[in-house]
Amino acid sequence: MKYCAHCGGPLRQGIPEGDDRLRHICGDCGSIHYQNPKLIAGCIPVWGERVLLCKRAIEPRLGYWTLPAGFMEQGETLPEAACREAREEANVVVELEPLYTLFSLPHISQVYAFFRARMVEERFSAGEESLEVRLFREDEIPWDDLSFATVHRSLKLFFADRRGGGFGFHMEDIGPDWRIARGG
Amino acid sequence: MKYCAHCGGPLRQGIPEGDDRLRHICGDCGSIHYQNPKLIAGCIPVWGERVLLCKRAIEPRLGYWTLPAGFMEQGETLPEAACREAREEANVVVELEPLYTLFSLPHISQVYAFFRARMVEERFSAGEESLEVRLFREDEIPWDDLSFATVHRSLKLFFADRRGGGFGFHMEDIGPDWRIARGG
Repeated sequence: MKYCAHCGGPLRQGIPEGDDRLRHICGDCGSIHYQNPKLIAGCIPVWGERVLLCKRAIEPRLGYWTLPAGFMEQGETLPEAACREAREEANVVVELEPLYTLFSLPHISQVYAFFRARMVEERFSAGEESLEVRLFREDEIPWDDLSFATVHRSLKLFFADRRGGGFGFHMEDIGPDWRIARGG
Repeated sequence: MKYCAHCGGPLRQGIPEGDDRLRHICGDCGSIHYQNPKLIAGCIPVWGERVLLCKRAIEPRLGYWTLPAGFMEQGETLPEAACREAREEANVVVELEPLYTLFSLPHISQVYAFFRARMVEERFSAGEESLEVRLFREDEIPWDDLSFATVHRSLKLFFADRRGGGFGFHMEDIGPDWRIARGG
């Protein structure tokens, strides 16, 4: 961030009055430009015993399997964002169940929220950001080829809870040293 | 948003290739500038029968009572943000209990997350953004002088759950027509 989005003036780093953090401040108009964590919303689409995964057609992690999820947009609710991503990435219609996982990833300033979700019908196909979309039984999950720690962790929790007979709500932090293989 | 933060060039509105929404795009360097919802983290600090509220010293809603909460910062986890806000606004040390409420406010593109929290000791004072900090019993809550719908709703749910003998996790959407008085 080098230039002011309001007036085009040069930005400098400084701590505004009453604040205690370095912010980008405009040398010309004085505007302060805050940066804040981003929210990613997604779901675990379930059809019977199986869950729906998408093979990513875009970077990062092109070619790896993911749960449908993406950046929440302005003007949306969290459930709306999760349903939209399922529609866009997998052409699947879901009915959301309760929020299932909520992860903070402070090293990349992101928060991920996954809902459990019921597929309304066994109908899906690859959206623009997916190479392939498929239903997987637990013993078919490509654990070594999952896209992100949040996806890996949500699926691990999901199958463990399902075996245990009840789904909780899980809030966890995921650090930079998290490896996909952990607990895999 | 008028100028490119990367190169200072003029921004235009357009739909990038593979996207379906209007974004701010730089006419010079082609950078796309996304805007995304912001996350606010807070808590309900509890000491015995009472909860801790702060009288706001800043706009918006200067002079109204609020739960300690504020914008999550880069590099934080949700629990860290909630604890920091309690410390900054009320000079209070809390131990967080499970996440309690999660609100989407699509009309202002915000998501609020409140934790229940146990005050470690009966010790607090007004931080820079507060005029006054006080413990309130349920029958003392200034319902008509609360700052935000999210605060009002979290407190209503909290006291109802406490009377009911158990705390759930509540996820709700709050629209622009929500009035502080609703259910008040």
